[in-house]
Amino acid sequence: MMWIDDALTVVRKRRPLVHNITNFVVMNTTANALLALGASPIMSHSVEDLEDLLPTADAVVLNIGTLDEYFTYSMLKAAQLAKVYKKPVVLDPVGAGATKLRSRVALTLLNSGGVSVVRGNFGEMSALVGEYGRTKGVEAVAYERAKAARLVLDAASMHNVVAGVTGPVDYVSDGKRVFSVELKKGSQNVEQLIGRVTGLGCTVSAIIGAFLAVEEPLKACIAGIATFKAVSLYAAEESPYPGSFHVNLYNWLYKIDGEGIKSVVKVSSVELPQGEA
Amino acid sequence: MMWIDDALTVVRKRRPLVHNITNFVVMNTTANALLALGASPIMSHSVEDLEDLLPTADAVVLNIGTLDEYFTYSMLKAAQLAKVYKKPVVLDPVGAGATKLRSRVALTLLNSGGVSVVRGNFGEMSALVGEYGRTKGVEAVAYERAKAARLVLDAASMHNVVAGVTGPVDYVSDGKRVFSVELKKGSQNVEQLIGRVTGLGCTVSAIIGAFLAVEEPLKACIAGIATFKAVSLYAAEESPYPGSFHVNLYNWLYKIDGEGIKSVVKVSSVELPQGEA
Amino acid sequence: MMWIDDALTVVRKRRPLVHNITNFVVMNTTANALLALGASPIMSHSVEDLEDLLPTADAVVLNIGTLDEYFTYSMLKAAQLAKVYKKPVVLDPVGAGATKLRSRVALTLLNSGGVSVVRGNFGEMSALVGEYGRTKGVEAVAYERAKAARLVLDAASMHNVVAGVTGPVDYVSDGKRVFSVELKKGSQNVEQLIGRVTGLGCTVSAIIGAFLAVEEPLKACIAGIATFKAVSLYAAEESPYPGSFHVNLYNWLYKIDGEGIKSVVKVSSVELPQGEA
Repeated sequence: MMWIDDALTVVRKRRPLVHNITNFVVMNTTANALLALGASPIMSHSVEDLEDLLPTADAVVLNIGTLDEYFTYSMLKAAQLAKVYKKPVVLDPVGAGATKLRSRVALTLLNSGGVSVVRGNFGEMSALVGEYGRTKGVEAVAYERAKAARLVLDAASMHNVVAGVTGPVDYVSDGKRVFSVELKKGSQNVEQLIGRVTGLGCTVSAIIGAFLAVEEPLKACIAGIATFKAVSLYAAEESPYPGSFHVNLYNWLYKIDGEGIKSVVKVSSVELPQGEA
Repeated sequence: MMWIDDALTVVRKRRPLVHNITNFVVMNTTANALLALGASPIMSHSVEDLEDLLPTADAVVLNIGTLDEYFTYSMLKAAQLAKVYKKPVVLDPVGAGATKLRSRVALTLLNSGGVSVVRGNFGEMSALVGEYGRTKGVEAVAYERAKAARLVLDAASMHNVVAGVTGPVDYVSDGKRVFSVELKKGSQNVEQLIGRVTGLGCTVSAIIGAFLAVEEPLKACIAGIATFKAVSLYAAEESPYPGSFHVNLYNWLYKIDGEGIKSVVKVSSVELPQGEA
Repeated sequence: MMWIDDALTVVRKRRPLVHNITNFVVMNTTANALLALGASPIMSHSVEDLEDLLPTADAVVLNIGTLDEYFTYSMLKAAQLAKVYKKPVVLDPVGAGATKLRSRVALTLLNSGGVSVVRGNFGEMSALVGEYGRTKGVEAVAYERAKAARLVLDAASMHNVVAGVTGPVDYVSDGKRVFSVELKKGSQNVEQLIGRVTGLGCTVSAIIGAFLAVEEPLKACIAGIATFKAVSLYAAEESPYPGSFHVNLYNWLYKIDGEGIKSVVKVSSVELPQGEA
């Protein structure tokens, strides 16, 4: 996991421009998370801005958490321009599976060919491979660990992207290999707190965007997820309550280093039983 | 007040889906408040989403704090669908009385017949019964305690809803009875701090939404107001400054229980002098 | 600097209505900053609201951080109405120079004749005097201190406004005189932290709006900048991490007084070498 350390160091040295078209609820949250980590967020949904901003951006974050016609068009345009300018894109398909609109927009963005990484929860990722009815509102329903590794492999393979599904244990796949990312200890308390602050899934996606600016998609997705998981643990150790936990997250995004990640997070290669294929 | 304890327990057990169409300033604030309390907020103003989301929602929060044509249409549509699907709705008429637009949209939503509870400050509630000129910007002007109990009774009666007016002492009415909700001590400091953080009136309305998912409107309104009042006191006791107070609010929404509410909040039946009618 | 103390006292006594049309990322941040300081923020981008709200507003803050056609039109309308009703306006030209849209809208607002104060970073202010290519995304590129004093004089003179450029040392000009505002100590740590929280430049502009409600433009701009600089230092002394620093900022906006500003901030008249003109 030395490469996570290296990637984090590069993020902080280069301060990459991460262009975000994201939802209204989390704009402030993810901008602050990117700044705390060391990246340079740009928050603009203006279609007219895109032609000027994307050529200088280092990565793009698209998040469908609050949609209207304008944002949908702007994200499609951004995905197209990202392809033209060869900028990596991470997609957060918030609420896919919960509404037809969100499923459709997420799949349209995936089909645009401009997306490098997609990160969602179990219900959202299920919708992206055509299995609906697993999303309760925009929150994940019961996380089915046994199926999550297979799901992420299918999603990555089907859409030719790196896919990451987050939950108690996170899984990442490039369509061939599958990796798990998990806390060595304390996972339960941390998950409980993560579920009590809005926009933290979106924050993981934004952080993946920062790593995507300096690393290839598979490593960027693992690094982003691992960094957030470590930061969550340290923040939760300092406070068991959601308000203070949230403040601590920003402090730890600023403080965290590769050693701090390595000592609490385990990344493993996952072998899927062949019979399951 | 045992029923507040019970209602809170049910909220935390069922984690009801509370669909919010709210203003841009407080989206993050109220989503975090609902999560901290134990509910499951959905934040979506998309008209297309409504048909898919409202059937599974347990309650709806409509807040007119920042209006444009799209949000106005979306809230009207949500009120109509809520009636179809028999979902309870709480309305926060932010800035009613301060602008014609806000008064008109608030009254239109009330007239839609889909609203169960309306919660506002003194100036906003005055506008809803046709007494304008009492709102300074979107903030309440001088809270006229003597008139507040009568006002809430009139508003509830006129619009056939439960009405709650918040201020130093809060009043709730179902059009027949009136109840006051107040802190047993420390009200002044708490009011001062509440006035220094944006979106806390909106937060009370959102919390009423969580209770509305599990209780009938009169009790839900009282429970929501009482819970927030208790939480505000505990948060203010830990910090006399608005930044930390705000963080503490989320911590206490997570920590609070029925016993904690009962020990600091007093709910009383109010007898209005007949001569005032 | 006794007048800063006086202006702050008047803000807290009168609680002026500051009407904000600002970007989605910082709406919550700047509303909370204004409340913490003691002003009364109104956040509304509705064109229909403007006719009702501007006559009672004491100052207007326009911020172009996230633009679409509606917000652009609303800000132009607000600038026009502010001129009609003789309300002072502060403009934050976020990202001017980074995109043609932002440069154009900022210049159009300046040309409307309704703007009293413009506050931006070095790259943004450069764009307003026709020197592009100095903005990286929406963040300032290298702050060129030697040129900043001249830049602010040029911008103020060209647009007939008070101009303020913020950075390690801030400069303010009314087109004739130039003043520097700087911390007596600790500037480096404070700048580092300010760069790790989103919306703090926007916060300075909002605070200038509060002072603009009670003071003439040159003094209001200096007072707003000096207040924020002092508050930042005290907040940074309590925490070297961005999450807690951000919370502390609100606490200190509430606590700060004229004596606290004077003891850590130095305001100086700047003599520009004639050869540079």
